[in-house]
Amino acid sequence: MSAPRTPKIPYGGDYNPEQWPEGVWDDDHRLFTRAGIDTLTVGVFTWSLTQPAPDTYDFTVLDRVLDRAAAEGRQVCLATGTAALPPWLAKRHPEVNRTDFEGRRHRYGQRHNFCPSSPAYREHATAMASRLAERYAHHPALLAWHINNEYGGVCYCELCAEAFRAWLRDRHGTLDALNDAWWTTFWSHRYTDWDQIEPPNALTEHWRGPNHTAFQGITLDYFRFTTDALLGCFLAEKEVIRAHDPDTPVTTNFMGTFRPLDYHRWAPHLDFASWDSYPPLDAPPTRPALAHDLMRGLKDGAPFWLMEHTPSTTACRDVNPLRRPGELRLATFQALAHGADAALYFQMRASRGACEKYHGAVIGHAGRDDTRVFREVAELGGELGILGNRTLGARTPARTALLFDWDSWWALEISDGPSRLVKYPDVVHAYYRAAREAGADVDVIPQTADLTPYDVVLAPALYVVKGDLATRLEAVAARGGTVLATFLSGRVDAHDRAFLTDVPGPLAPLMGVRVDEWDARPPEFTQTVPELAAEARLVFEIVLPRGAEPVATYGTDFYAGTPAVTRNRFGDGEGWYVATALDQPGVDTVVRRILARHDLLGPYADHPAVETATRVAPDGTRLLFLLNHAPEPARLTAHSTATDLLTGKRVDQGEPLVLDPLGVAILH
Amino acid sequence: MSAPRTPKIPYGGDYNPEQWPEGVWDDDHRLFTRAGIDTLTVGVFTWSLTQPAPDTYDFTVLDRVLDRAAAEGRQVCLATGTAALPPWLAKRHPEVNRTDFEGRRHRYGQRHNFCPSSPAYREHATAMASRLAERYAHHPALLAWHINNEYGGVCYCELCAEAFRAWLRDRHGTLDALNDAWWTTFWSHRYTDWDQIEPPNALTEHWRGPNHTAFQGITLDYFRFTTDALLGCFLAEKEVIRAHDPDTPVTTNFMGTFRPLDYHRWAPHLDFASWDSYPPLDAPPTRPALAHDLMRGLKDGAPFWLMEHTPSTTACRDVNPLRRPGELRLATFQALAHGADAALYFQMRASRGACEKYHGAVIGHAGRDDTRVFREVAELGGELGILGNRTLGARTPARTALLFDWDSWWALEISDGPSRLVKYPDVVHAYYRAAREAGADVDVIPQTADLTPYDVVLAPALYVVKGDLATRLEAVAARGGTVLATFLSGRVDAHDRAFLTDVPGPLAPLMGVRVDEWDARPPEFTQTVPELAAEARLVFEIVLPRGAEPVATYGTDFYAGTPAVTRNRFGDGEGWYVATALDQPGVDTVVRRILARHDLLGPYADHPAVETATRVAPDGTRLLFLLNHAPEPARLTAHSTATDLLTGKRVDQGEPLVLDPLGVAILH
Amino acid sequence: MSAPRTPKIPYGGDYNPEQWPEGVWDDDHRLFTRAGIDTLTVGVFTWSLTQPAPDTYDFTVLDRVLDRAAAEGRQVCLATGTAALPPWLAKRHPEVNRTDFEGRRHRYGQRHNFCPSSPAYREHATAMASRLAERYAHHPALLAWHINNEYGGVCYCELCAEAFRAWLRDRHGTLDALNDAWWTTFWSHRYTDWDQIEPPNALTEHWRGPNHTAFQGITLDYFRFTTDALLGCFLAEKEVIRAHDPDTPVTTNFMGTFRPLDYHRWAPHLDFASWDSYPPLDAPPTRPALAHDLMRGLKDGAPFWLMEHTPSTTACRDVNPLRRPGELRLATFQALAHGADAALYFQMRASRGACEKYHGAVIGHAGRDDTRVFREVAELGGELGILGNRTLGARTPARTALLFDWDSWWALEISDGPSRLVKYPDVVHAYYRAAREAGADVDVIPQTADLTPYDVVLAPALYVVKGDLATRLEAVAARGGTVLATFLSGRVDAHDRAFLTDVPGPLAPLMGVRVDEWDARPPEFTQTVPELAAEARLVFEIVLPRGAEPVATYGTDFYAGTPAVTRNRFGDGEGWYVATALDQPGVDTVVRRILARHDLLGPYADHPAVETATRVAPDGTRLLFLLNHAPEPARLTAHSTATDLLTGKRVDQGEPLVLDPLGVAILH
Repeated sequence: MSAPRTPKIPYGGDYNPEQWPEGVWDDDHRLFTRAGIDTLTVGVFTWSLTQPAPDTYDFTVLDRVLDRAAAEGRQVCLATGTAALPPWLAKRHPEVNRTDFEGRRHRYGQRHNFCPSSPAYREHATAMASRLAERYAHHPALLAWHINNEYGGVCYCELCAEAFRAWLRDRHGTLDALNDAWWTTFWSHRYTDWDQIEPPNALTEHWRGPNHTAFQGITLDYFRFTTDALLGCFLAEKEVIRAHDPDTPVTTNFMGTFRPLDYHRWAPHLDFASWDSYPPLDAPPTRPALAHDLMRGLKDGAPFWLMEHTPSTTACRDVNPLRRPGELRLATFQALAHGADAALYFQMRASRGACEKYHGAVIGHAGRDDTRVFREVAELGGELGILGNRTLGARTPARTALLFDWDSWWALEISDGPSRLVKYPDVVHAYYRAAREAGADVDVIPQTADLTPYDVVLAPALYVVKGDLATRLEAVAARGGTVLATFLSGRVDAHDRAFLTDVPGPLAPLMGVRVDEWDARPPEFTQTVPELAAEARLVFEIVLPRGAEPVATYGTDFYAGTPAVTRNRFGDGEGWYVATALDQPGVDTVVRRILARHDLLGPYADHPAVETATRVAPDGTRLLFLLNHAPEPARLTAHSTATDLLTGKRVDQGEPLVLDPLGVAILH
Repeated sequence: MSAPRTPKIPYGGDYNPEQWPEGVWDDDHRLFTRAGIDTLTVGVFTWSLTQPAPDTYDFTVLDRVLDRAAAEGRQVCLATGTAALPPWLAKRHPEVNRTDFEGRRHRYGQRHNFCPSSPAYREHATAMASRLAERYAHHPALLAWHINNEYGGVCYCELCAEAFRAWLRDRHGTLDALNDAWWTTFWSHRYTDWDQIEPPNALTEHWRGPNHTAFQGITLDYFRFTTDALLGCFLAEKEVIRAHDPDTPVTTNFMGTFRPLDYHRWAPHLDFASWDSYPPLDAPPTRPALAHDLMRGLKDGAPFWLMEHTPSTTACRDVNPLRRPGELRLATFQALAHGADAALYFQMRASRGACEKYHGAVIGHAGRDDTRVFREVAELGGELGILGNRTLGARTPARTALLFDWDSWWALEISDGPSRLVKYPDVVHAYYRAAREAGADVDVIPQTADLTPYDVVLAPALYVVKGDLATRLEAVAARGGTVLATFLSGRVDAHDRAFLTDVPGPLAPLMGVRVDEWDARPPEFTQTVPELAAEARLVFEIVLPRGAEPVATYGTDFYAGTPAVTRNRFGDGEGWYVATALDQPGVDTVVRRILARHDLLGPYADHPAVETATRVAPDGTRLLFLLNHAPEPARLTAHSTATDLLTGKRVDQGEPLVLDPLGVAILH
Repeated sequence: MSAPRTPKIPYGGDYNPEQWPEGVWDDDHRLFTRAGIDTLTVGVFTWSLTQPAPDTYDFTVLDRVLDRAAAEGRQVCLATGTAALPPWLAKRHPEVNRTDFEGRRHRYGQRHNFCPSSPAYREHATAMASRLAERYAHHPALLAWHINNEYGGVCYCELCAEAFRAWLRDRHGTLDALNDAWWTTFWSHRYTDWDQIEPPNALTEHWRGPNHTAFQGITLDYFRFTTDALLGCFLAEKEVIRAHDPDTPVTTNFMGTFRPLDYHRWAPHLDFASWDSYPPLDAPPTRPALAHDLMRGLKDGAPFWLMEHTPSTTACRDVNPLRRPGELRLATFQALAHGADAALYFQMRASRGACEKYHGAVIGHAGRDDTRVFREVAELGGELGILGNRTLGARTPARTALLFDWDSWWALEISDGPSRLVKYPDVVHAYYRAAREAGADVDVIPQTADLTPYDVVLAPALYVVKGDLATRLEAVAARGGTVLATFLSGRVDAHDRAFLTDVPGPLAPLMGVRVDEWDARPPEFTQTVPELAAEARLVFEIVLPRGAEPVATYGTDFYAGTPAVTRNRFGDGEGWYVATALDQPGVDTVVRRILARHDLLGPYADHPAVETATRVAPDGTRLLFLLNHAPEPARLTAHSTATDLLTGKRVDQGEPLVLDPLGVAILH
């Protein structure tokens, strides 16, 4: 099963009419029509309304919401609403509230507040999902199911401890195997009974927060357990929905590069992926792009939904800048360029109270349609109408892959040594950015993915190497491809045990290097890499070439002249190793040399502010998205003759092609 | 009832002879006499001494302290001593100890350590107050009652939870009303039983500390509840005191601009206000001045007591600088200038042990009278003797008001969005400072105060607008006055629900503007405001004039040229709106233009280091305080003929008037 | 009893073969032999292995480890392994887990995880020590006993509360005495029953962490109690070892300038001192040198063991730089120069898993002997072989003493006022560094030590003055010596009660000064001291000379011209007082003037990067260590004729003497 079939890109977003008298609904729908809104996500936080008491269900309001949507010709993404407990449930079953990293049982409050191992939660949540499915499976407005919301958070209660122990039994089989996996002989930790195992938190194995643990193996397993525990909640709801509704696609909204959950373990269980995009402040456009591509990679390249983004501002940050004129449109088309088949907002109407009342909304507190934001939303709605179904179902024909691995993220960032300052997403992003700004389409894929479609595989900070990955990477090179790995790769196995071979472990043959030692320095220290006219920081592995040739070297210190970047012939291809955290220009140079070898530099690679992305529609039409992220016009020369889907204008090869500031073109 | 009647300004401070053998008392009184000390605050932390066991009271030492004071001709401000529990009470009734924001029940320690909802505490504290009142009501030394000490702090225990629920019932009446007020449909919070409501803390609605809450309405109500709960403690003690002593004035010492408690709710219940002044390091002199004026505003302009300040240093800060020569005198006269009718220190003799032993004292560990500090204290004592009763009871004839509103403080600082960086007291202080440095006397008043006496009303950051305030502000303008409001004003009602109208809500008609969106930027970003030659930061509201005319505009960004400051004709007067956080020069320019319109600029407005303040004595004598805050002499030209109360010197209008570095004159 | 007798410097370190299959052991011993490794510390974390269940002991592996060591001719430092609980013990007796500063009972995890007051822990730990002693007392490999490991940490459980009360009874005798010592009348804390006393932590007397306490006296006593409680654990193990093994020396590994434990209280109970040296990042070489000298001072100048240092990197820090080529050798010889009679590493083979797998090791994960680090270790092993017994048992003939006092450290850093920014070890280090860089050998001694051997006694930041110390310091000066004291000295007695005399209390007569007040300023503020061409920071005491003459004065502020440094003739000697935190050049100037007076400047005092240290062997041979800490050669002129023990080369007085970069010579 895949994403819902729709005649055009679903446009709309999270809508909470239950917060308002029905008179307001009339205004809402009038404005929705004006803005081309056709899709509403409803029911995300309605549990206390639809089940006001243990034995009382009341779907009156929800009925009216869906009926009204249907009457207006709008479709609904219906949430099960199980992400925020109703107060009575928290009071009646205190164990449904989470116990936090500090070991403190919480009491009722906030949202995302349920213990994933609590039978009472599971039972009540699935009962709710079941009733909803039973009631609305055949509702004319129903387009998709949206289970829970932004799954995340961790619980450390006794129920979770028990569930963790069962999970460990299942994973490790015997205590001997577990003791070996976690290397428990260190610090006298050999367990002799499963009951001795405690969830790793501030009261047990951790100090200075979630990244400082005495036993990486335990903590790593708790990340995995948490992923599976929350996935279990999702699956339980999905199962009861399926009992009543075998056809409507089911999703839950992810959060892109979100550390707590390994979305690759979830992906097979979603009918389609969807996510909420709130890029960090001042992030370059490749940050949300990376997340889009990661989401697209979840379902093997199938289109995903942009389930939430803000029409104007966030509220939850210390500082919440406005999206400036044109930025919303540009971000929306960027999502489409990367594989989104829906464009939805949080939120349709601003909440009157509580902590999201200042979060950007299509309709503000004054209910106006003459605001700048509403105008931009409505204009965009018009453009999406023009676009129709032209992009729906289109796929990205990437020949470059980037491996994204939650295990490596977790293990690297909980490591004691060599440097707490290395952040996995930053390393990954640097390589992704280099490839994207050079014009390459990139698939961001799990390390288990089929690598045969790719000429170039980037594997930055691949700290954990599992299964037959090394062999499959060697195969890429053997057939002529290029594999790039970096510092802090090939360090540990799936249990966070160091490989008892030269660094980079199983990647060493492909890379043709050996690393015995590595320096780490404070963040303000930089090391020159003269051949790249670049600087390096944080970690400096000292590379002994074992077959590889130096590409660039360190410029100073006792390891001056030793390689910082190497290239190793391997079969018909190459293995590249980058032994330090190069600055972006350094990464750019390395990646462009690799892409050039495979003729993968894009036509506008010398316009770094112009993003290009290709999608191939089901009918084979090739669409080239051009996105100008600069506040100035981009003056290009058309690399081929094409027509812009949005304007209908044709541009001939070799002719000037001008993109407005923050402008977009979709050439076919 | 008002402050105690005294023949001169009470001079002295906190005195803890119970810590010392009586031989030391002799030294103390000898030095007190030398320094002109006539008033002693005693009994502040004597509970464990006066009640060493549940059924044992022992007033031997306190008797001697008061008798000795009386014998020496000194008067006593007698504390009830209930701000620090005796150990036996904490042991016997563990529930009297507070439960903190993290949900942790404390055990015995520190001070300000009692749960305000604990019946055991209430019972024991009132019993103590009652016994003290019975015993000392007619003691010849008794001048005033001083209940507890520096009320503050919050408790989150089960007793408080119960009390909170009762308080909520009383405030909201029904759960429906509460659900509507707190907007609980958001995030599935609709309560169906009062028992489901938990105090908002780190285990419930909060994350990242007390300012980050999922539901502003809940948190706002807990601020109010805490204010009322502690006030309840005060009132209980006051009641039993009154039963024995109907005449002696009662106070408790406040802490100026102290966020945790809404002193406006307390003010009616105090016979006179008093406060402890410990301005932040490197604060400009307008910071303590603002607090003085706020304290004076509590009792409708009646004089207050300066209950504590330090003769030399604090101890509780990371860095505790000395008051330099002359600074103590200047700070004392500043307090008098703003309405203080007493000048008291913490502390008379330095404690030998524990955490305040380095807090400045009139008498240090070596017991000397030949220290610089003692000399300055004694000289000041002499000057106060000269001053006699000339300033007692005098009031400030201000025509400028500044609204200070705890609800706005709380709600603004717990808001998610637009910016966590806006601090209410900083915004308020900027406008206060501008008015004060321009020479205007300013009343700092609650938003419920009568506005008819004022020509100018400054309402910075008036985030919450309640009751008929907007109408009363309009009346000010209608009759020719000027009202100034700023960004983040008129946003929410008393329950922190956004107004469903254009920003600034009920203030919009008076201001003649509409605001649809607002930008927020990091602290290092500045926006130019060319017409004011000023810079703006943090929040930038985008103003659409609806009647108002621009006074100044933004200089850059997509909203360049739109108004940053506007002026709106309203009746015979004006509404000014400042849409961003201007720097001090920008605020100064705006405020001086407003003051000039009403002829409220002071005679020395071009001497920013010279503070002026007027008090009108009960006999109608007009006293002009001149305070030179600069370390250089201030060379003025006398604006009228007057005599200096301190020196008896006369200065003629138009003649040179020189103030020494840190010098003071009181002209009449 | 003293350190073990050995024919040469023991060389080796922590070895955990129990983590590995025995095949790896063969590799280990082969490499050990190659590197000159003769000493292995084993059993440090084997408890869960040697006692897998309450009633099951299993020494199979340990037997093999020791037998193999003996067979290979290596000696063993045998640990009792009680520093990390086995899981079953934590599960069976939850009270053996610690309760932390926040009052949270921990559950099983990490190491150093035992409550020192727990009978269950004490019983099981001593049972283990007893069995080990019984089994291995006469093992041919046994060289020394190593009890527990890096004692530290604090527990606040009910068992500790009870033990604390008993300890207080013992120390104070009566509650009246305790109330007086802690000055409990302040803030109503007079205790009427021992049971009312709670351990001082975040739930009682503390806020903002361990340094902020309402009652310094309580907190100071809890530091002492913790020292004694952990010492009690050590003594209990030592006692049962002695029952089986009266001869083998016993130690535990200390951590140098480690605040939590007053090692001076432990010193008499160790047969020899040993410590783990992990100097802070970028610390000057005088930092570890200070710690070496402190450790040597524990046993009245007897040699100590360097029990751990890293061959290459640490792992536990945010950033873990490499020891660069030559640095390991230099650090090792520095330890010998300061009195070490052993040179041991952590760790011999890198752990495969858990949090120390990246900690530097002699043998890395790949098991190689051709790494740079292994080569350096092996070369150093060779040099130690050449050195043989030439340095063993040698002592340092210092005429300069520096007082190091844990009570002063604790009390100064928990003080409210005048400045939280003064750090005791920083002040002490500045004076130590000045003396060492001037070429003086320095004994770092407790304040109870015999002062008669010294010409110069440095007493920086001697905040607490106890017993007859002032008299003994006066005696030093009376007979012609020089005593230096600084700001924040002589402030309080052993209970943290201020002296009721002029500052610096009992030191005032010797210093000839009186201090009434002191300024404190933010860290970025500096005050000039023109006579020293130096700057001062943080605290500025205002000195009134009472016999002393000014040496240097403050350059600005209202105390400009008053003394910053004074010198007082006292008997035949002098008392110097430094009233502020001088920068290092300022401290250098002062200390060099003092040393020059006693002819204690070293021959290479104008080469600050060349460290010199003297040891006198038992046979009277005088060895001069020369250590070049610069990365450039040091070109000296030999001050006398001597031969280098390491190279056998002779250098004549007045001839050039060149030290390589990071080079070492041992002249005799």
